[in-house]
Amino acid sequence: MDFDLDLSIEVLRRSPATLRALLDGLGEPWVRGTEGPETFSPFDVMGHLIDGEETDWIPRARVILAQGPDLRFEPYDRFRHRARNAGRSLELLLAEFARLRATNLQLLRSWNLTGRELDLPGEHPSLGLVTLRQLLGAWVVHDLGHVAQIARVMAKQYRDAVGPWVPFLPVLTDHVVPRS
Amino acid sequence: MDFDLDLSIEVLRRSPATLRALLDGLGEPWVRGTEGPETFSPFDVMGHLIDGEETDWIPRARVILAQGPDLRFEPYDRFRHRARNAGRSLELLLAEFARLRATNLQLLRSWNLTGRELDLPGEHPSLGLVTLRQLLGAWVVHDLGHVAQIARVMAKQYRDAVGPWVPFLPVLTDHVVPRS
Repeated sequence: MDFDLDLSIEVLRRSPATLRALLDGLGEPWVRGTEGPETFSPFDVMGHLIDGEETDWIPRARVILAQGPDLRFEPYDRFRHRARNAGRSLELLLAEFARLRATNLQLLRSWNLTGRELDLPGEHPSLGLVTLRQLLGAWVVHDLGHVAQIARVMAKQYRDAVGPWVPFLPVLTDHVVPRS
Repeated sequence: MDFDLDLSIEVLRRSPATLRALLDGLGEPWVRGTEGPETFSPFDVMGHLIDGEETDWIPRARVILAQGPDLRFEPYDRFRHRARNAGRSLELLLAEFARLRATNLQLLRSWNLTGRELDLPGEHPSLGLVTLRQLLGAWVVHDLGHVAQIARVMAKQYRDAVGPWVPFLPVLTDHVVPRS
């Protein structure tokens, strides 16, 4: 499937409601469980997604569109949310994410990006040259990866509860060494 | 985390709205894409979840609660949905799943299951003896696994679109040999 701006926005605009439907009002054992030390709980993932809205996708798109002398993106801090959200509630994070995403998509739409603009390059700190099209595609995949991660992390809280069913429920044995 | 009936129902009752938020109105390339031959698209997963409501979880719980002479469950047909849903729309499947799930959870709640009942056994055709508690836990994990699968299958449609980002987006390389 080739990158398509409208089809990308279709997914990006759904993520806040998907995450709210999955998580809002859910008990703490589901919300705060992880896959092991140094891995994200669903609460942490929401904070990470907020960080992405504030510091990653749109700021990097702006660097590309400006085509200034320095095309290099700021490195992304995967742990900014830990200090930022200590003491906040999940409900607050769900609302913040929805608000930030709506604003960012409004901005993205307002740019009326052309094919030429989508081909403009930026420089990722470790991946090298990337295009605006690839950045926006990565934004979509990043959302979906974290929806999958939240569902997986929740499922793993019941690994012992399913008894002999483990081999029929592959989500329980995905990411034995967690990677996202 | 130990099995808890209320915490299980919390997850089971959210799945229809989660899947509706993620999928309703989405373009065909997202809805019909797969991970490769003989794997499920998001549309197929919705059909599979409906089959679960009609033929798997509650029917098996009834076998356990009846404690008749034959505790063995009917084998589950993972491909029943293919013929059943040919020509149906995703919107119809989302509505069917929501209706079936609501009815099944109403029934489950009406049983007011005791700890003794949750410990009653049934016989899985290939896993052997399982308890009602394990069956209900597997229902929860099965839902979450398929939410994760839908997000993963959608993400993979953009594998080429993200260019050099692939190693930073592990959802794209999960299930190289699809298992669910």
